[in-house]
Amino acid sequence: MTSKLTLDQATEVISAAKAKAAELGQPMNIAVVDDGGHLVAFVRMDGAIKASIDISTRKAQTSVMMNAPTSALTDLVQPGAELYGLGQLSGGMVTFGGGVLLKVKEEVVGAVGVSAGSVVEDISVAVAGAEAL
Amino acid sequence: MTSKLTLDQATEVISAAKAKAAELGQPMNIAVVDDGGHLVAFVRMDGAIKASIDISTRKAQTSVMMNAPTSALTDLVQPGAELYGLGQLSGGMVTFGGGVLLKVKEEVVGAVGVSAGSVVEDISVAVAGAEAL
Amino acid sequence: MTSKLTLDQATEVISAAKAKAAELGQPMNIAVVDDGGHLVAFVRMDGAIKASIDISTRKAQTSVMMNAPTSALTDLVQPGAELYGLGQLSGGMVTFGGGVLLKVKEEVVGAVGVSAGSVVEDISVAVAGAEAL
Amino acid sequence: MTSKLTLDQATEVISAAKAKAAELGQPMNIAVVDDGGHLVAFVRMDGAIKASIDISTRKAQTSVMMNAPTSALTDLVQPGAELYGLGQLSGGMVTFGGGVLLKVKEEVVGAVGVSAGSVVEDISVAVAGAEAL
Repeated sequence: MTSKLTLDQATEVISAAKAKAAELGQPMNIAVVDDGGHLVAFVRMDGAIKASIDISTRKAQTSVMMNAPTSALTDLVQPGAELYGLGQLSGGMVTFGGGVLLKVKEEVVGAVGVSAGSVVEDISVAVAGAEAL
Repeated sequence: MTSKLTLDQATEVISAAKAKAAELGQPMNIAVVDDGGHLVAFVRMDGAIKASIDISTRKAQTSVMMNAPTSALTDLVQPGAELYGLGQLSGGMVTFGGGVLLKVKEEVVGAVGVSAGSVVEDISVAVAGAEAL
Repeated sequence: MTSKLTLDQATEVISAAKAKAAELGQPMNIAVVDDGGHLVAFVRMDGAIKASIDISTRKAQTSVMMNAPTSALTDLVQPGAELYGLGQLSGGMVTFGGGVLLKVKEEVVGAVGVSAGSVVEDISVAVAGAEAL
Repeated sequence: MTSKLTLDQATEVISAAKAKAAELGQPMNIAVVDDGGHLVAFVRMDGAIKASIDISTRKAQTSVMMNAPTSALTDLVQPGAELYGLGQLSGGMVTFGGGVLLKVKEEVVGAVGVSAGSVVEDISVAVAGAEAL
């Protein structure tokens, strides 16, 4: 029943993401899920918007469900593109950047989702978190 | 209470679809529903993305609800087109290809939905499944 | 991204469960999920009630979410008992028997949920499925 | 936009709750919400059941929504009692113990919810968390 992703690992991811967010001066919501999309750890930094509690968590879950970073979906879901309408499926997925897979030795163990800044900032903080593993 | 579509028939559809997916080298989620849209059989091939559990099932259900393949809906739901917004109705429908009606002697008995590859691959696997009947 | 539980293993579980259901003369819905609660395989035997599509799947998911057979919850959720109200939490859980954990070498790899007969029959079919691993 | 409850305070609550859970030998899900019921921090300790992700969060939210510990609701929601049916309102509330208000100088600043053990254990860990403030 224990996840491949431990709470210690999730805490490292969040610490690295928080450090990057502080460097950018942008408070963030940061969510870490296991490879089944179930939440392992979450923080909302002081001043980060409340809407991003859900958005950051769904970004992480979307990465796990799609086995891809959420930024890979953006072009695919535009009007006229192949997966237009995808975002409302599988319980509601986020199709802009900020969700990134977490890997240990090439194996996916979960994902991190970051939200509250611009998409470029969200991605940068999520990547910083993922690189901590 | 027994559907017009038997489990044996649904199993044949899934076997044919799996064979086509293996030929393409693309693991798939494959769902078969009866003419009321209720699930009869489902498989997730090893390595197929989890988001497609819901998407494949809804593709099959959408085909039954619309009495059409899901690929027929794509143009109709674009911004400015006649059925813009359709995807969020009837409990959430999928408006890109991969859902195909199942017919026995010209009578609709259900549908098969396939998801995890490109839309072209999904359609190809769904059609292979439907042709097994 | 591949589950610890393979489709081949899930298919074995379903075959064993189907054989037991046939022996009892009770058509069943049988759902197998991985250790994240995501569906791997499902069958509805001819004549089994449609309500049990959802119930069998949720039984399997509940077992994974609670790390226990669903029959262990029945006494705990009665009026006046410790977990009265549990069934509506975590997305809706089933608190009567028919969901059983799947283990390989003592490790939980998923769960099987069975529904359409009496609770005693459902449990008996689920256990037969679980013992196939 | 900043909550009365800071992330530093929420982290202290979680640390104290984790220490108590470790002392009891019972891995827990621990959620801290602000006075609007919005998540500030969450951890799932290794081995804690997944169903309690939702349950711990809702316990904290229920405490805020009812301005009371969740244990105060248990008697009120039994069949025949005054608030029978309460649990399904306000988005789904938890009516057994493990949700406790967080106060700073007598003012409610949020709540902590704990789930995965017995109700007595959950309450004990939540109270340990709340006393850290």
